[in-house]
Amino acid sequence: MSTKENFITLIHSLQNAICEAIEKCDGKAFFKTDEWKRAEGGGGISKVIADGNIFEKGGVNTSVVYGEVTDNMRKQLKIEGHSWFACGISSVIHPANPFVPTVHFNYRYFELYNVDGTIADAWFGGGTDLTPYYLFEEDVKFFHHTYKNVCDGFDAGFYISFKKHCDDYFVNTHRNNERRGVGGIFYDYQRASIEKTAEKWVTFASASGHAFLNAYLPIVEKRKNTAFTPEQKYWQEIRRGRYVEFNLVHDRGTLFGLHTNGRTESILMSLPPTVRFDYDFQPEKNSEEEKIQKVFLNPKNWVDGITDEEQNEWAAKVNSC
Amino acid sequence: MSTKENFITLIHSLQNAICEAIEKCDGKAFFKTDEWKRAEGGGGISKVIADGNIFEKGGVNTSVVYGEVTDNMRKQLKIEGHSWFACGISSVIHPANPFVPTVHFNYRYFELYNVDGTIADAWFGGGTDLTPYYLFEEDVKFFHHTYKNVCDGFDAGFYISFKKHCDDYFVNTHRNNERRGVGGIFYDYQRASIEKTAEKWVTFASASGHAFLNAYLPIVEKRKNTAFTPEQKYWQEIRRGRYVEFNLVHDRGTLFGLHTNGRTESILMSLPPTVRFDYDFQPEKNSEEEKIQKVFLNPKNWVDGITDEEQNEWAAKVNSC
Repeated sequence: MSTKENFITLIHSLQNAICEAIEKCDGKAFFKTDEWKRAEGGGGISKVIADGNIFEKGGVNTSVVYGEVTDNMRKQLKIEGHSWFACGISSVIHPANPFVPTVHFNYRYFELYNVDGTIADAWFGGGTDLTPYYLFEEDVKFFHHTYKNVCDGFDAGFYISFKKHCDDYFVNTHRNNERRGVGGIFYDYQRASIEKTAEKWVTFASASGHAFLNAYLPIVEKRKNTAFTPEQKYWQEIRRGRYVEFNLVHDRGTLFGLHTNGRTESILMSLPPTVRFDYDFQPEKNSEEEKIQKVFLNPKNWVDGITDEEQNEWAAKVNSC
Repeated sequence: MSTKENFITLIHSLQNAICEAIEKCDGKAFFKTDEWKRAEGGGGISKVIADGNIFEKGGVNTSVVYGEVTDNMRKQLKIEGHSWFACGISSVIHPANPFVPTVHFNYRYFELYNVDGTIADAWFGGGTDLTPYYLFEEDVKFFHHTYKNVCDGFDAGFYISFKKHCDDYFVNTHRNNERRGVGGIFYDYQRASIEKTAEKWVTFASASGHAFLNAYLPIVEKRKNTAFTPEQKYWQEIRRGRYVEFNLVHDRGTLFGLHTNGRTESILMSLPPTVRFDYDFQPEKNSEEEKIQKVFLNPKNWVDGITDEEQNEWAAKVNSC
């Protein structure tokens, strides 16, 4: 099978596996499926969940799209070529409880063709990042450690490089470079080489993609029953405002989709269900809210100080969710 | 006095007059004043109101800023010159009651200088537009008619041209060209000429600016006590989501400010206090919600069919607010 076919198979099986696990974890809500066609070529499958026991709003979308390279793409994506193909999976999950973090992941594959149909260029991108509203260092360490383990299975340099890329990408530059969350891994424009073949990149996307279940659901399980106050929900909604700001002002994928006649509802599935925008909101000094805000302003190293034993204990929790 | 000085005087007196009238109308909340300095030159006065009887969140901001023309400005604003000066007033008011519309206005003046300090170019811009959540045709006609009257006092072509510019500008292109609201007037890059002198443009900005009191407050007065259901509040919050989408994805002023180290809190004062983003929200067939959505998709002509008598009756209401 071609890389293209392998990647398409991967995103659909990942979409099904993750939706199934999320439904099981939630215990109440089910994903609603919308299939859509793109006039210019291809289409997608959007799966959205809402008003669950745990998950207030979430989506796991796949798309397989293709077409001619337009002037808009040349300008915005800075690519050259005659035609293109892209496929990917993208997800954002917003839990109701402010002690359960929001999570995002995205894995994608892109091909560019010459006039004669031969491949001119091809690359992989993706990653997963966590946006908590309250800081539980053990949760963040566990999350990062899970992806470090996946990365280390492929290349000793992956984690450190992809972690940094993630911290550098999900940034509200208009908010003193405040990060959207506590990061994770993010990679883009990764081309196959003799050492890192296309097969290896597909396997890496698969391993990272499936790691979501082990990296995120145990945190959900651990925090889902924590009682919270209206003030804590308020803080979550303020922070969700920053999520909206990043996605609509800075996120390349969102802006490209919105400016090139993408399927708006699938693209904006990422926006949180309820949001607050207050003028000059400032967390109280020495509060838990201020503590996590400081971490957003100064990303930390999360992988030292968690043992494999602790990691295994965490991983075991996934079975109880 | 120079045009610059005249415009600065105008925006500060307008800011005070409008804040005073809004406080009087609200009867509970008062504006909080934040003065800020801009490292590169100039500063501003932000006045914000929150949690009033009527107004859930609002701001009336002025700024007087200047500096060298940067590469970023050359690229983003497509301007040439050595240095620049800008001053303006900008306001967005979000009422709590979904039957009271949101309103926005902005009036500004820009000067570009040659190396020797002589004026290379100068222009005026501004406008006021209304974003209701439910359609009361009489309110929209009244609002448009008020600005038409102001426009007609200056130039017979102003209203028709500025109304169209407004409909063409406040558009969510990613939502099938849905407009942010029911429009109003908007003009930009207006340069002084022998017929339309700089003094005339300042006077026009002053007349349009002060017309806010007669165009908007009577509508507030008329609708402020209308009872509403949680479903109607829900619809308001969904529509506020579209307001956020326009401001963060499309609005040139917002994006320029956020990308050029403007004062973020003053720029994002425009965002609504509470917002909802639902996946694929659709109003019910033949509902009031669908009715106004159709108007957002197909802007109408509002100035036929309202008599001067009706207009005067409306204007009289402003005194009771």
